[in-house]
Amino acid sequence: MDIAGIDPSHSNLHRSSEVLFSAKAAKALSFEEIARHIGRSEVSTAALFYGQARASPEDIRNLSSLLDLQEETLAAALSGFPDRGRTVEMPPREPLIYRLYEIVQNYGYAYKAVMNEKFGDGIMSAIAFSTDVKKETDEQGNNWAIITMRGKWLPYSRF
Amino acid sequence: MDIAGIDPSHSNLHRSSEVLFSAKAAKALSFEEIARHIGRSEVSTAALFYGQARASPEDIRNLSSLLDLQEETLAAALSGFPDRGRTVEMPPREPLIYRLYEIVQNYGYAYKAVMNEKFGDGIMSAIAFSTDVKKETDEQGNNWAIITMRGKWLPYSRF
Amino acid sequence: MDIAGIDPSHSNLHRSSEVLFSAKAAKALSFEEIARHIGRSEVSTAALFYGQARASPEDIRNLSSLLDLQEETLAAALSGFPDRGRTVEMPPREPLIYRLYEIVQNYGYAYKAVMNEKFGDGIMSAIAFSTDVKKETDEQGNNWAIITMRGKWLPYSRF
Amino acid sequence: MDIAGIDPSHSNLHRSSEVLFSAKAAKALSFEEIARHIGRSEVSTAALFYGQARASPEDIRNLSSLLDLQEETLAAALSGFPDRGRTVEMPPREPLIYRLYEIVQNYGYAYKAVMNEKFGDGIMSAIAFSTDVKKETDEQGNNWAIITMRGKWLPYSRF
Amino acid sequence: MDIAGIDPSHSNLHRSSEVLFSAKAAKALSFEEIARHIGRSEVSTAALFYGQARASPEDIRNLSSLLDLQEETLAAALSGFPDRGRTVEMPPREPLIYRLYEIVQNYGYAYKAVMNEKFGDGIMSAIAFSTDVKKETDEQGNNWAIITMRGKWLPYSRF
Amino acid sequence: MDIAGIDPSHSNLHRSSEVLFSAKAAKALSFEEIARHIGRSEVSTAALFYGQARASPEDIRNLSSLLDLQEETLAAALSGFPDRGRTVEMPPREPLIYRLYEIVQNYGYAYKAVMNEKFGDGIMSAIAFSTDVKKETDEQGNNWAIITMRGKWLPYSRF
Amino acid sequence: MDIAGIDPSHSNLHRSSEVLFSAKAAKALSFEEIARHIGRSEVSTAALFYGQARASPEDIRNLSSLLDLQEETLAAALSGFPDRGRTVEMPPREPLIYRLYEIVQNYGYAYKAVMNEKFGDGIMSAIAFSTDVKKETDEQGNNWAIITMRGKWLPYSRF
Amino acid sequence: MDIAGIDPSHSNLHRSSEVLFSAKAAKALSFEEIARHIGRSEVSTAALFYGQARASPEDIRNLSSLLDLQEETLAAALSGFPDRGRTVEMPPREPLIYRLYEIVQNYGYAYKAVMNEKFGDGIMSAIAFSTDVKKETDEQGNNWAIITMRGKWLPYSRF
Amino acid sequence: MDIAGIDPSHSNLHRSSEVLFSAKAAKALSFEEIARHIGRSEVSTAALFYGQARASPEDIRNLSSLLDLQEETLAAALSGFPDRGRTVEMPPREPLIYRLYEIVQNYGYAYKAVMNEKFGDGIMSAIAFSTDVKKETDEQGNNWAIITMRGKWLPYSRF
Amino acid sequence: MDIAGIDPSHSNLHRSSEVLFSAKAAKALSFEEIARHIGRSEVSTAALFYGQARASPEDIRNLSSLLDLQEETLAAALSGFPDRGRTVEMPPREPLIYRLYEIVQNYGYAYKAVMNEKFGDGIMSAIAFSTDVKKETDEQGNNWAIITMRGKWLPYSRF
Repeated sequence: MDIAGIDPSHSNLHRSSEVLFSAKAAKALSFEEIARHIGRSEVSTAALFYGQARASPEDIRNLSSLLDLQEETLAAALSGFPDRGRTVEMPPREPLIYRLYEIVQNYGYAYKAVMNEKFGDGIMSAIAFSTDVKKETDEQGNNWAIITMRGKWLPYSRF
Repeated sequence: MDIAGIDPSHSNLHRSSEVLFSAKAAKALSFEEIARHIGRSEVSTAALFYGQARASPEDIRNLSSLLDLQEETLAAALSGFPDRGRTVEMPPREPLIYRLYEIVQNYGYAYKAVMNEKFGDGIMSAIAFSTDVKKETDEQGNNWAIITMRGKWLPYSRF
Repeated sequence: MDIAGIDPSHSNLHRSSEVLFSAKAAKALSFEEIARHIGRSEVSTAALFYGQARASPEDIRNLSSLLDLQEETLAAALSGFPDRGRTVEMPPREPLIYRLYEIVQNYGYAYKAVMNEKFGDGIMSAIAFSTDVKKETDEQGNNWAIITMRGKWLPYSRF
Repeated sequence: MDIAGIDPSHSNLHRSSEVLFSAKAAKALSFEEIARHIGRSEVSTAALFYGQARASPEDIRNLSSLLDLQEETLAAALSGFPDRGRTVEMPPREPLIYRLYEIVQNYGYAYKAVMNEKFGDGIMSAIAFSTDVKKETDEQGNNWAIITMRGKWLPYSRF
Repeated sequence: MDIAGIDPSHSNLHRSSEVLFSAKAAKALSFEEIARHIGRSEVSTAALFYGQARASPEDIRNLSSLLDLQEETLAAALSGFPDRGRTVEMPPREPLIYRLYEIVQNYGYAYKAVMNEKFGDGIMSAIAFSTDVKKETDEQGNNWAIITMRGKWLPYSRF
Repeated sequence: MDIAGIDPSHSNLHRSSEVLFSAKAAKALSFEEIARHIGRSEVSTAALFYGQARASPEDIRNLSSLLDLQEETLAAALSGFPDRGRTVEMPPREPLIYRLYEIVQNYGYAYKAVMNEKFGDGIMSAIAFSTDVKKETDEQGNNWAIITMRGKWLPYSRF
Repeated sequence: MDIAGIDPSHSNLHRSSEVLFSAKAAKALSFEEIARHIGRSEVSTAALFYGQARASPEDIRNLSSLLDLQEETLAAALSGFPDRGRTVEMPPREPLIYRLYEIVQNYGYAYKAVMNEKFGDGIMSAIAFSTDVKKETDEQGNNWAIITMRGKWLPYSRF
Repeated sequence: MDIAGIDPSHSNLHRSSEVLFSAKAAKALSFEEIARHIGRSEVSTAALFYGQARASPEDIRNLSSLLDLQEETLAAALSGFPDRGRTVEMPPREPLIYRLYEIVQNYGYAYKAVMNEKFGDGIMSAIAFSTDVKKETDEQGNNWAIITMRGKWLPYSRF
Repeated sequence: MDIAGIDPSHSNLHRSSEVLFSAKAAKALSFEEIARHIGRSEVSTAALFYGQARASPEDIRNLSSLLDLQEETLAAALSGFPDRGRTVEMPPREPLIYRLYEIVQNYGYAYKAVMNEKFGDGIMSAIAFSTDVKKETDEQGNNWAIITMRGKWLPYSRF
Repeated sequence: MDIAGIDPSHSNLHRSSEVLFSAKAAKALSFEEIARHIGRSEVSTAALFYGQARASPEDIRNLSSLLDLQEETLAAALSGFPDRGRTVEMPPREPLIYRLYEIVQNYGYAYKAVMNEKFGDGIMSAIAFSTDVKKETDEQGNNWAIITMRGKWLPYSRF
């Protein structure tokens, strides 16, 4: 299996991304293995590598031991509160990410109409939220990616 | 339950949306009921009302009977091939749709890294694709929206 | 006191805004009076006139009696779920609204830093949210506007 | 409590931000503590760290003693007039800051209508202005953020 | 002398602009004459015709008598609070207006540096503000336009 | 009095700006003093420091003696023809500069209408142009900034 | 020879363009013939049809007789001062116009460097300006378009 | 005469521009002199210095001898195929270049209409193309810049 | 087989598109059949229906007879020179068209490098150009679309 | 024949592009020769040099031997999953690439209409996709570029 890495010329990386991805490459670890080790999902583990999710002190401890990185250095780089939203240029130029954008563009109002009827006036939270990706293989041998997003429903306050 | 409608002043509506939504309102039908009647999912049924999904001749027949609309008129309006992507202004200004956009923005590279490791070099199709929305209520009485997206994995051709 | 109205040439108005503002002008009612009558805050009442907040059946009943508008027509126009975010062009060209935008631009990261330290990793909700505007006059006779925003703190889920 | 820091890869930081935030982290001081020490509000103190507010000579003296930074160096970096508005990319990609932007987008005209009726033709100043953030906990244990903005009302000159 | 008019196909005009400009053309009145009649400056009078300045009840009375327009109709159209900023597309495509934009672009920081040194940390108000245009002819017979802008200096509040 | 400086992290500075502003800070000279010394207006002197105006050989000689900079180095940096328009990001994010932009946005067509009536079909030049800033204090002790812009009127050629 | 016309669905046309182009089509007149008749160049004549150049009273008289349009109506539509710059969307989508835009994009700095060396610090006026188009056929029978632009050189004022 | 140079802080320069312009400055050569030496026009010579035109081996040889630059180094820097279009930011902020852009904006459809009538359906090539700049002085001593553009007419293929 | 139509709410349609598509729908003709009838390729025939290609007098005659449209009306609508480039919003929101855009985005420099090596410094013309679409079915029954583009190579003039 | 290279000042290059292009230049190899050596098409080989296509282990082995680059270094730089879409700025400023963009803009809906009629509702894949460029010389000695794109047809799932 190939290991996802980053191109350091990518202009919007978090300062700790290069170190983390290098260590991951050196250890030839997949996000699945790292996620299992730190007890988080694969997507949030990858998001953490991109500086898009928060690392708890335990995450830092576990990552430093798994990746042979100094805990103190890692703590300095990862502590604090993520400044989210900076890695993906919108509209996304990357074809895989663009497909997700296209889904929002094509089905946005359909999702809204269905959710409004099911839940009332409100939104699905992107904060009280989790997501994962699964792989399925059908009988013809085709692979299918299944993304699940689970967000708390927040009704608009009446005021 | 309230019925989702549209504001006809919305500037990017498909020409048949207003007729369809009016008929739906007059009959007080939810997308769940319509979807069940035409044998499609709720999201694609709503997408069809927004001109973002294709109606088969059976869909047109079923819709015209359910909504008391002339089949011929409906066929003229809905036949042909949808010109998708025109309803949602990007970045979305509507808060519910923006949350989905934010998920792509925040987790885009994380999804890509995880999928590349699971599937190799390619994309999740947004065409050979289906999606739905479910409602879950947890023990504290909070509602959660679950969106599932299922797309065929398309590996890049080597050429 | 002058009554706020709308210029119908404004291109992003909700379909019911013109009717509501005309009735308000004809009755020479301020938002303060209307808000008191329907039991909501001034800002949300004005937002409702712009199609940016949801009207409950009681709101519709109260508005139709106060403004001498047919309840049924009003119900047809206001029922359903608002398609929010369409009235203000961003960046705002209107000077009063631009000042609010400038506050976000100048103090955005300062708000974030202070809130992260007070609450942890998360956001202040704009959905479980209320806001109002007060007027204060200081000793020199200067008027001051006080905007209060109150939003539920939503911590990021760990997943 | 965690201390807010910055990612030095953030592209629009003021030249003195990195030094200030490092010293703050080394001393493990919150903005609340620093604000108390220099006699300013938390938000303006954080704004000062981002180069978005002006430091008086006393502020520089107090900060240098509290943070163990050379007063002269700090004075050279912080003196002069802030070049405001450069840290937040608009529309904001950071979710917490986006929520504030969304409030302006959704309620902009409502604020304007209400203020015009309360104050006449003019704007709320963003210059003769102060703001703070408070934390409230309700009976269910939920936290709420309260932002207050207080700006002088400036009536349009008739000319 | 030619009279300035408007092209009604201009897409961002205020609803009362066409009526006002037509009456002005029918009476062959210049803004100088109208301004003198209503006791305002030429620029603010023209701004009023474009819906960018507020008309007082006296302005409406004076304009209706001068332009032979029904006072009541004019009052209905002009009363309320202007929704400013909508006529000029930015960057301006009109060459005369573009030159003003170019002055801001080229001299913006120079103005700021000079004003900061003269006044301290603050801004020149565009609200407590007046402006006019004068014509000068030099000895070679060249005409020169002189724009004067006078705005109240607003120092940033320390908070 | 405070001296205006620059933040070297500002991304669009001319290569000689940093040297000039540092020398100015070291000598604690205001633009008024420098302008008097080189016989130019304050605004054009500041524009020269930002690389937005041309330095004549005399200007270079005078600046080098006043600021204790090597004439040759300064000549190499400042000679040639300015590449104007690069310092201010449009729309301006800096509040002081934004106010000037807002004036163009709000009064652009009013200026045009008034100038067309006064001068005919043409523009006010931004090249055969000068500008300055004055300070006025009214009886209540309020300060007012007065910007004067003087540009040659250029009539459109008939061809 | 074919006659240039307009598509009335083009969204940025001047209000008199459709009438002028229809009359031109009915009379089957080329711009060359019309230009000769009114004593102007072809490009400025076409610009006048698009509302991008000013018509003198003689132009209006001549056009009305040549095109069999009522002089009074034409005068009402064409008098006043053109609101230039609205017909071409930038960047231009029309391939012929795009090629001109591309020339500016590719050779812009080269033109500037050459002109600065020939003329000093200044600009070529687009107001004191004329332009025409010629056709040349070379020996191989290829056609070449020759655009000539002639603008007054405006040196920057020293101030 | 002054020599045109570049500000190395200009962000979109070709890698060889700085070397070429420095050598040109050191030798105090104008583009006219260099163009004469290499047998090309001034504009294309300047374009070559900006990396916007191709240098032939002879050009490289001639430039290296004229400018005292190593032929091999120059060949390495200039060989290959130019990546055109990167130096001018569109819309151009530089006033001289903006005037050219404004000409396209104002006269674009007029050029198209005239060319279509003269040549039929097609475009003027920007590739099979040459251009130059001339200086004219009229009797009053005013200077005029004359830009000539000559492009092959390409008729649309019928297919 | 289904017939491609248009949604008249599409905002950038040529004025004759609706008539042409309606007639095509009424006759249930595919572009393949129409193209065969008028002796043009399918893509250019469809482009002609969208106002993106020029109709010759014979095309107009043939279309009017095939579609039972008045030749004179059709001639009035289709004669003249197309104003190309207005139907597709860029970046395209329509998924099929976006894929073509993505190909340009991903392979643009690769096409350039390969063509430069094969042809020298120049471009592939989009004017002296033709294109078609073919359908291929492989052994597994999958369909493949083959787009061929053939454009004349235009070398840059040396000048 | 000339060899395509890159300008390292191009801001969006993949980290390994400079090394690959330098080695290619040193060996004076065309993409045709490299493509033949590694058994891929010219366009995908060039795409690989730009970091826009994936290199298999065999590609890396073959490239390292052909270009005399260390296999290990090359593997580290090229392994992983390309982050596509970053090299071409959209709309493209480079004239050759712009012509391809213009083709999409002008013929986008025509391609869609023709493909929908030939294949039904769906898209041509840009992933299960290959492309190449051929050169043709006609009888008059003109060169023509032929681009072929072959993509799998993906029908929309009904759901």
